[in-house]
Amino acid sequence: MKSTNKDVAVSSRVRFARNIADYPFYGKCDPTSANEIISKVRDALGEGYSEMDLSEKDELTVGSMVEDHSISREFANSELPHALFTSENGEVKIMACEEDHIRLQVITDGLSLEKAYEEACEVDDLLASKLNIAFDDNLGYLTHCPTNLGTGMRASVMLFLPALTETGKIRSVSTQLSKLGMTIRGLYGEGSEALGCLYQVSNTETLGVTEESVISNLKDVIEKLIELENEARKRICDSDPDRFADRAFRSLGVLKYSRMIDSSEFMRCYADIRVGVSLGLINDVDLDALDRAFIEAMPYTLMKHMGKKADSVERDLARAKRIKELI
Amino acid sequence: MKSTNKDVAVSSRVRFARNIADYPFYGKCDPTSANEIISKVRDALGEGYSEMDLSEKDELTVGSMVEDHSISREFANSELPHALFTSENGEVKIMACEEDHIRLQVITDGLSLEKAYEEACEVDDLLASKLNIAFDDNLGYLTHCPTNLGTGMRASVMLFLPALTETGKIRSVSTQLSKLGMTIRGLYGEGSEALGCLYQVSNTETLGVTEESVISNLKDVIEKLIELENEARKRICDSDPDRFADRAFRSLGVLKYSRMIDSSEFMRCYADIRVGVSLGLINDVDLDALDRAFIEAMPYTLMKHMGKKADSVERDLARAKRIKELI
Repeated sequence: MKSTNKDVAVSSRVRFARNIADYPFYGKCDPTSANEIISKVRDALGEGYSEMDLSEKDELTVGSMVEDHSISREFANSELPHALFTSENGEVKIMACEEDHIRLQVITDGLSLEKAYEEACEVDDLLASKLNIAFDDNLGYLTHCPTNLGTGMRASVMLFLPALTETGKIRSVSTQLSKLGMTIRGLYGEGSEALGCLYQVSNTETLGVTEESVISNLKDVIEKLIELENEARKRICDSDPDRFADRAFRSLGVLKYSRMIDSSEFMRCYADIRVGVSLGLINDVDLDALDRAFIEAMPYTLMKHMGKKADSVERDLARAKRIKELI
Repeated sequence: MKSTNKDVAVSSRVRFARNIADYPFYGKCDPTSANEIISKVRDALGEGYSEMDLSEKDELTVGSMVEDHSISREFANSELPHALFTSENGEVKIMACEEDHIRLQVITDGLSLEKAYEEACEVDDLLASKLNIAFDDNLGYLTHCPTNLGTGMRASVMLFLPALTETGKIRSVSTQLSKLGMTIRGLYGEGSEALGCLYQVSNTETLGVTEESVISNLKDVIEKLIELENEARKRICDSDPDRFADRAFRSLGVLKYSRMIDSSEFMRCYADIRVGVSLGLINDVDLDALDRAFIEAMPYTLMKHMGKKADSVERDLARAKRIKELI
């Protein structure tokens, strides 16, 4: 595996949408069918997976799992029985009874789309060998939403793009990607303001394409984006290195010294520090610890750590404390 | 000596203006006379004083001495020969050939007006015993500026008043003081914005009053102001202790982590931290070190430390570095 270049590409993700032909699709599925689907997925996966019945879980646990991307928001809110299966190393997660009967996703570190794809295929083959997966010779895999028809695959890479955000280049990137059958969106925050400067670039096409070409094209584009981001970082840093370093270190000071901090300010500081670390300005902060703090600072994950629901002022106090423990 | 309460009253100062009857006053004095005056002051003081010929000194040295209140700006800019005599412990300073022939000042720590007054009187008596000091039975001591006629004495206390500043009470304090023959002014900054929340409260009257009553009245007023300031601090802190602590610690974070900082921001941080220390929120910062940093962060003092003149960006960089060394 080549260098993951984790200071720009945070993680890679491949997700397959699958349905079992013998059961009604989402919207027409009843609790009995849902329980049977979960049971069939359990049997098909066999050993090596832990199971979590999400219907039984409290709001804080479910909310924190949405925040760390273990499950989708739709899955969290489902009113039918739904369960999550997780592989031993935590990379492979199978949501049973999401929008589709089966949502299989693999998240791997850095830019490692092939690895994620291979692992996903392995589990997909296992499921296909045991279950009657809904498939049409013309349309490919049948899915609840037509945008997933065909491969049923969505591949994406989480990118940290502070320099392309700051220079405003992210807008032209977005236009170009759409021409290539890809899309970019902020992982947090609405519209043009991507909090934490974190984005997800993914394929939009699933019909009339091969999985391999999607992965390969996406990988090429991501590599180009990493190059653009690194160039933009260097240009910003070189234009006024003192002010650039000042900004990164001040943000570190805020995280180390504030007694209360809200999500938005934390995400701004996170972005400043993360780019400071990636450019070698800040040496005593670990990127993994910082990324972990990013998740731990989110409302539900934070409240789960606190062991109770809390209002925003209580969270701001707890967030400042938690961040200091982590970085 | 009672508690100096240094977290509100930073220092006390008593200054006497004196002239030698045999020489023309400021404006009519020539270099020859100025040199003779300096010589007479030197002889009168005798042992125990170091002498500095300010006419010989470079801009950075002179500027830094204005910043730490060793000398007045008028003295620094004088085109006649002028010299500074300093006692061994540094508390007593005599400017020879300022606006008046002799400006004798004593600066002592905290609220210690009587101590400063006594020390000033001792030196004043010494000078009076050796020199023909200009004195009129009706007007008292004769001075260059009529506002000093009479006692020729200005007594003042440097006060740190962040809470009275924040609540806006400082304005009514100012009105009340003027009725009592006193005045309050920001030590740095113009108009209502006193940078660093540092003020000087001093007597305005010198004619028809005794020195003792001026000192005693000023002391009473200062004690009342200290009480008001402490009450206001407690009220602000109690109303939202978390936000208050957050502000103090964030400012500390800025001083510890910034790579460039301008004077105004530094003074705001200084004020936040100083009040945090005085309320026991911040325990690992020494008040004396902080106050020293306040002077060391000033432009000329900073450039003197750098060993060269520097533009504002260079100073902002050097200031951030210097502050980190000091606190």
